Amino acid sequence: MFYHVKELQYNAKPERPDPVYAKKLQEILGGQFGEMTVMMQYLFQGFNCRGEKKYRDMILDIGTEEIAHVEMIATMIAHLLDGAPAKEQEEAAKDPVVEAVLGGMNPQHMIVSGLGATPTDSAGYPWNSRYMISSGNLLADFRANLNAESQGRLQVVRLYESTSDPGVRDMLSFLIARDKMHQNQWMAAIEELEQQQSAVVPSTFPKNLEKQEVAYSFMNFSKGTESEKGSWAHGPAMDGQGEFEYIENPEAMGQIPDLTQPPNYVHGTPT
Amino acid sequence: MFYHVKELQYNAKPERPDPVYAKKLQEILGGQFGEMTVMMQYLFQGFNCRGEKKYRDMILDIGTEEIAHVEMIATMIAHLLDGAPAKEQEEAAKDPVVEAVLGGMNPQHMIVSGLGATPTDSAGYPWNSRYMISSGNLLADFRANLNAESQGRLQVVRLYESTSDPGVRDMLSFLIARDKMHQNQWMAAIEELEQQQSAVVPSTFPKNLEKQEVAYSFMNFSKGTESEKGSWAHGPAMDGQGEFEYIENPEAMGQIPDLTQPPNYVHGTPT
Amino acid sequence: MFYHVKELQYNAKPERPDPVYAKKLQEILGGQFGEMTVMMQYLFQGFNCRGEKKYRDMILDIGTEEIAHVEMIATMIAHLLDGAPAKEQEEAAKDPVVEAVLGGMNPQHMIVSGLGATPTDSAGYPWNSRYMISSGNLLADFRANLNAESQGRLQVVRLYESTSDPGVRDMLSFLIARDKMHQNQWMAAIEELEQQQSAVVPSTFPKNLEKQEVAYSFMNFSKGTESEKGSWAHGPAMDGQGEFEYIENPEAMGQIPDLTQPPNYVHGTPT
Amino acid sequence: MFYHVKELQYNAKPERPDPVYAKKLQEILGGQFGEMTVMMQYLFQGFNCRGEKKYRDMILDIGTEEIAHVEMIATMIAHLLDGAPAKEQEEAAKDPVVEAVLGGMNPQHMIVSGLGATPTDSAGYPWNSRYMISSGNLLADFRANLNAESQGRLQVVRLYESTSDPGVRDMLSFLIARDKMHQNQWMAAIEELEQQQSAVVPSTFPKNLEKQEVAYSFMNFSKGTESEKGSWAHGPAMDGQGEFEYIENPEAMGQIPDLTQPPNYVHGTPT
Amino acid sequence: MFYHVKELQYNAKPERPDPVYAKKLQEILGGQFGEMTVMMQYLFQGFNCRGEKKYRDMILDIGTEEIAHVEMIATMIAHLLDGAPAKEQEEAAKDPVVEAVLGGMNPQHMIVSGLGATPTDSAGYPWNSRYMISSGNLLADFRANLNAESQGRLQVVRLYESTSDPGVRDMLSFLIARDKMHQNQWMAAIEELEQQQSAVVPSTFPKNLEKQEVAYSFMNFSKGTESEKGSWAHGPAMDGQGEFEYIENPEAMGQIPDLTQPPNYVHGTPT
Amino acid sequence: MFYHVKELQYNAKPERPDPVYAKKLQEILGGQFGEMTVMMQYLFQGFNCRGEKKYRDMILDIGTEEIAHVEMIATMIAHLLDGAPAKEQEEAAKDPVVEAVLGGMNPQHMIVSGLGATPTDSAGYPWNSRYMISSGNLLADFRANLNAESQGRLQVVRLYESTSDPGVRDMLSFLIARDKMHQNQWMAAIEELEQQQSAVVPSTFPKNLEKQEVAYSFMNFSKGTESEKGSWAHGPAMDGQGEFEYIENPEAMGQIPDLTQPPNYVHGTPT
Ligand SMILES: [Ca+2]
Ligand SMILES: [Ca+2]
Ligand SMILES: [Ca+2]
Ligand SMILES: [Ca+2]
Ligand SMILES: [Ca+2]
Ligand SMILES: [Ca+2]
Repeated sequence: MFYHVKELQYNAKPERPDPVYAKKLQEILGGQFGEMTVMMQYLFQGFNCRGEKKYRDMILDIGTEEIAHVEMIATMIAHLLDGAPAKEQEEAAKDPVVEAVLGGMNPQHMIVSGLGATPTDSAGYPWNSRYMISSGNLLADFRANLNAESQGRLQVVRLYESTSDPGVRDMLSFLIARDKMHQNQWMAAIEELEQQQSAVVPSTFPKNLEKQEVAYSFMNFSKGTESEKGSWAHGPAMDGQGEFEYIENPEAMGQIPDLTQPPNYVHGTPT
Repeated sequence: MFYHVKELQYNAKPERPDPVYAKKLQEILGGQFGEMTVMMQYLFQGFNCRGEKKYRDMILDIGTEEIAHVEMIATMIAHLLDGAPAKEQEEAAKDPVVEAVLGGMNPQHMIVSGLGATPTDSAGYPWNSRYMISSGNLLADFRANLNAESQGRLQVVRLYESTSDPGVRDMLSFLIARDKMHQNQWMAAIEELEQQQSAVVPSTFPKNLEKQEVAYSFMNFSKGTESEKGSWAHGPAMDGQGEFEYIENPEAMGQIPDLTQPPNYVHGTPT
Repeated sequence: MFYHVKELQYNAKPERPDPVYAKKLQEILGGQFGEMTVMMQYLFQGFNCRGEKKYRDMILDIGTEEIAHVEMIATMIAHLLDGAPAKEQEEAAKDPVVEAVLGGMNPQHMIVSGLGATPTDSAGYPWNSRYMISSGNLLADFRANLNAESQGRLQVVRLYESTSDPGVRDMLSFLIARDKMHQNQWMAAIEELEQQQSAVVPSTFPKNLEKQEVAYSFMNFSKGTESEKGSWAHGPAMDGQGEFEYIENPEAMGQIPDLTQPPNYVHGTPT
Repeated sequence: MFYHVKELQYNAKPERPDPVYAKKLQEILGGQFGEMTVMMQYLFQGFNCRGEKKYRDMILDIGTEEIAHVEMIATMIAHLLDGAPAKEQEEAAKDPVVEAVLGGMNPQHMIVSGLGATPTDSAGYPWNSRYMISSGNLLADFRANLNAESQGRLQVVRLYESTSDPGVRDMLSFLIARDKMHQNQWMAAIEELEQQQSAVVPSTFPKNLEKQEVAYSFMNFSKGTESEKGSWAHGPAMDGQGEFEYIENPEAMGQIPDLTQPPNYVHGTPT
Repeated sequence: MFYHVKELQYNAKPERPDPVYAKKLQEILGGQFGEMTVMMQYLFQGFNCRGEKKYRDMILDIGTEEIAHVEMIATMIAHLLDGAPAKEQEEAAKDPVVEAVLGGMNPQHMIVSGLGATPTDSAGYPWNSRYMISSGNLLADFRANLNAESQGRLQVVRLYESTSDPGVRDMLSFLIARDKMHQNQWMAAIEELEQQQSAVVPSTFPKNLEKQEVAYSFMNFSKGTESEKGSWAHGPAMDGQGEFEYIENPEAMGQIPDLTQPPNYVHGTPT
Repeated sequence: MFYHVKELQYNAKPERPDPVYAKKLQEILGGQFGEMTVMMQYLFQGFNCRGEKKYRDMILDIGTEEIAHVEMIATMIAHLLDGAPAKEQEEAAKDPVVEAVLGGMNPQHMIVSGLGATPTDSAGYPWNSRYMISSGNLLADFRANLNAESQGRLQVVRLYESTSDPGVRDMLSFLIARDKMHQNQWMAAIEELEQQQSAVVPSTFPKNLEKQEVAYSFMNFSKGTESEKGSWAHGPAMDGQGEFEYIENPEAMGQIPDLTQPPNYVHGTPT
């Protein structure tokens, strides 16, 4: 169960409105790697957690924090939209450049949400739950989480570079720091789990049931062998259980497909 | 540019048709972490690559291999659908259990694709490109790739457990091995990049611009402190540049939001 | 079965082209609460109607009118696009402001539809049928309809404020009036149904099967009790069958979740 | 900012596993009118609220409660999935009826979430944010909320009828009661707002700018006049500002569309 | 503007309920090539039509007919759902086979629509407007229409094969005939347009601006030359303006991509 | 199985960056009829092919070529984005027109992909697999392919008209020529199949089972008979097996729908 307090986790106040920037900021609210994604991803991973209690608690701690991040960014967007002129005909008649700049707004910020944040990304695309994962295997999921925090921090940094508003930058500097902590947190949790099991997910599948011949082979399917220069081509594999090998000219090992004719009631191509 | 050979990378032939299993197998073809996802993700990362040549080559090697995995699974699904009775009225009249089993099929395998694989997941949901990412930052993207191969291998293993058909299991044992290699490969590439830069993405954002006070703090937002028992709560952080601290009772640091009244032309709530 | 006449229900002719406004107008054609939504919502409610004949007839009357609204707005958009320059290189070379204004167009109005209306909203997002509902319970559905006409009229009014073209405003003044009628119509129908049954949907579920203790309690989950000042906190409830009460400090009434370990074949987190 | 406690708002424990019912229960978790919808709808309405403080507080109270409902249903679904056999080949070999029943499961409950709840509806379709609305006009939004609670309670009741598990029914009886409260709450809030303004949304648009001739006319577009028998056809309108009239044979009032030829660079149909 | 009459275009009455078949029938109502698609596609093509009046009239004739097809199939589905047991616990307790068969239903037919048709396909996926096209070029669009009627009729025929209910088959035999007419109709219209212009869309692009060297070459990108045996490999091309040639070993004609390093503010991979 | 070579099929190098045009060019990469659509459509049709070997080979030849087209356009977009200023605050401070022009960019080209191509269309909408079809009936599918190449070439031509960059135009002139070839190719293949079977898909459904009375009737559902002037209204039908007739006043042939009351457990409208 959850409780709410009225204060934001950190300040979310721009120095001046900027409806075009509001559109961009939507990316880290309702985008593929925005706050809605990590919020829902962590909440579902926590609710579904069948692992040790400390993991469930930790996941719900961070999931609960992410709701507060959604709140902060939504608030910031509402402030940035404050100055959005709806009566464009008046301004624009006077200044076509103003109208042109407004062309960079998301029109739904006026028409649909009435100067409020929307649960969409910077292209206006709605958030959907296929952005998130809760797999029932914590090592797999912590890698999803590390990825989300890495992509997410990268986007926040790019948004930081795209504004000079001190208020916006202040809030983003907070999120950038939290995303650093969250990357560190998932890396620590991953290391813990990798030390208890193998580094390959899932670690519980019997080795003898997988095709060993190809379990450590790098296959060079594109002409040129620049790819041989990487640490993935030779030497011990990362799971400590095999040796990388480089297959310069990989050959097909399978059959030429030969599908049977479909039954008449399918009305396929007549022969 | 690409070339095709007719042989499959590995055999894809079931011992007997099984249209209900065909529906399940769709998950690793057109699902969130299926072969279409890694194929398109690696191809776009390769096409967009502005990094060292060895990375571009390596990414396109594996991207090209994934097209072959799409081909294998699509072929397997077509074989599994061979025996799907369309004329249900005849069989079902004789045996309600047969009809019931067929209720577990995806009806589109008959009506839409005429006993062919579809570019959808096991719930019949179409593949879409928001499943993939190409961010322009290779460390971020290799973490996305490691996640995709981890979730993907987990799903293949679960599908292995759900069938006893030796032909299907043979193909899956090949994919399970390749996914192990691919996890190893991305871990090796990640290690390389982490050693050249910091472990936090992006590594190029100036430290002094982020809110240092909260960059290494674990905040306990859910009652109970089981989360303190993890390696993320105390000790040196994974990036080697800070010390984890555990905030048992995190306090709000921000303002109480107070949005201004909207202009009249927005027709918000009258006051 | 349906018949078409060539005249529009009302005029749809702008005074001058305005491709940027055409993009915005798409919201009330193909948006969440646009004409396509009410058209399909009413048609499906009518086709599925198992209630009294007068409801089915009434719903199909308005559903049929909405097809004409789709026709009017699509026509208006095609007119507004008349002046869209495709050969931007020529104009833009001469005037960067012109190019900038065109940046506010939906590029698909040129590339995909060739200066025609598209079945999308003002962000270019396609209409989908999850925008509509036909539940088989008319009181529930009439509330959906009242909501759609309320959100819809709000959007039309905002679009009216965003243009000074007399032709566009003339058409919108017609739609604004029809949406007023439609709000009145659904309110009247709702009142009729509420008088025949209870105001709570569905009215047919036995009272003794629902947890009476919490059926009229307002629970204050966010710190601060400003919410106590509303008519929902004290006094007789709207259904005339209970008394509102205000729970200032709601307590959890349920268990602490404790999920069992998954079976091995799920390959969850190893313990 | 938010805090979490470990206890559920109400018990969520079935008497026995039922993976087929788990699939159905997803509707009220991740469906069009499920708990994720009201949770996100209320949170965004609260974060965006520019109205009186008591509304913002009230909306966030209920929004915060809905997160707890998501938690309860997710927990219930995880319990219901406990008994889901992955190793179908073993059981099914013995009993085709068991296999048939399992055909009614959502395969992603095994393959993707590993016996956890998914953020999808009963057809496996992912939740998306176009299910919700925050318009900046509270009367409009409270109608959206009343609709959501009406459709939602209807669905919970239908799910109650579809199971005989006492544990599931206990939890549903709690949700049915809360949805009754929430319907009452929104009705009370709507009445308050309607008394301060007109009943038509938005109430702030000048009457003289809308086409008065059609603002109270019911138009009979489908043959037969059964629709004349309703309270929407004659008598005073619900907003108290007009009189309904019934137009038996509505005539077109607009032009026959006549679009101009497109410019050559559009490459339309050659003439 | 449109009018409705109460009679269906053709009978839509099954002999007996069949909720599992109702799910399948949804494909031709709300699927990729269902009646909703052709209805919306033809209506938009008609509304946007800038060509000769006879084309606009013809397109709207068939568009208006398709609304009636939506009506017929929706009605049929509602009838097929009549017998759907909601109280599964009662029946299923008695007969697991009954429960198993019901596993083949779309649960939303009970929970969401209350035994009504839904605007979705046979996998429960909602209709969306990216299924349709209105391009502003009639030859292009008539090919889209011929394709839609071909895929659509194929699906209706497959559904005919999947039932033995005489009432359902009667309605389908009507739709199969109409789809035959519609295929004939679009073929006739295509022939007309091809005779006025070239067979290649668009016919108005200057020949000298396209790369003539590759305008009639079949390129053999997959090993093996079985593809040389077709009429597309040698002989006069279909547009009468060139000669097919077969390129057995197509060579790359382009550069090796070499993207520049991104600016620092993008925070790409550090070098 | 597939192999990759580093050279592009044709040059993809603009003369200068143009981030606004990059957004538009996305349409033919990830749009409804872009290269991703034909690539996936042909690959699935090839993998699923149960027809003659020459068809499978031909389909996979062209499918493999289309992967190379995706590669070319992605490369071109990355080049066009080279000059995209992220640090807008600096430039824009100096020149509002620059900022305005940048409003026409897709913000995700900076924030999400870091100056790389995205798998989306020109409105930023992600590619999804419902754009493609593989039906198991080659005549149906070749019509889908002819449509895709017609819509696709139309879009490429419109994009050619929207730029004056010689490098972009050079690449487009190649694609325009290939799309001409591909239209010719599918027309040739269609002619072959139509000569072996009837022109109506599917050709294998028994004539006596379809409602012959309406199999060749054009029905005039919209007032006015301009539609009678086309070749589809009178004369021999295109399949050579019937005669078109024009029904000026089509009458309904079906019942008035009369649905039964739902059972109580559905909680429909109380009566
Ligand atoms: Ca290589
Ligand atoms: Ca805690
Ligand atoms: Ca409160
Ligand atoms: Ca009527
Ligand atoms: Ca070949
Ligand atoms: Ca006509």
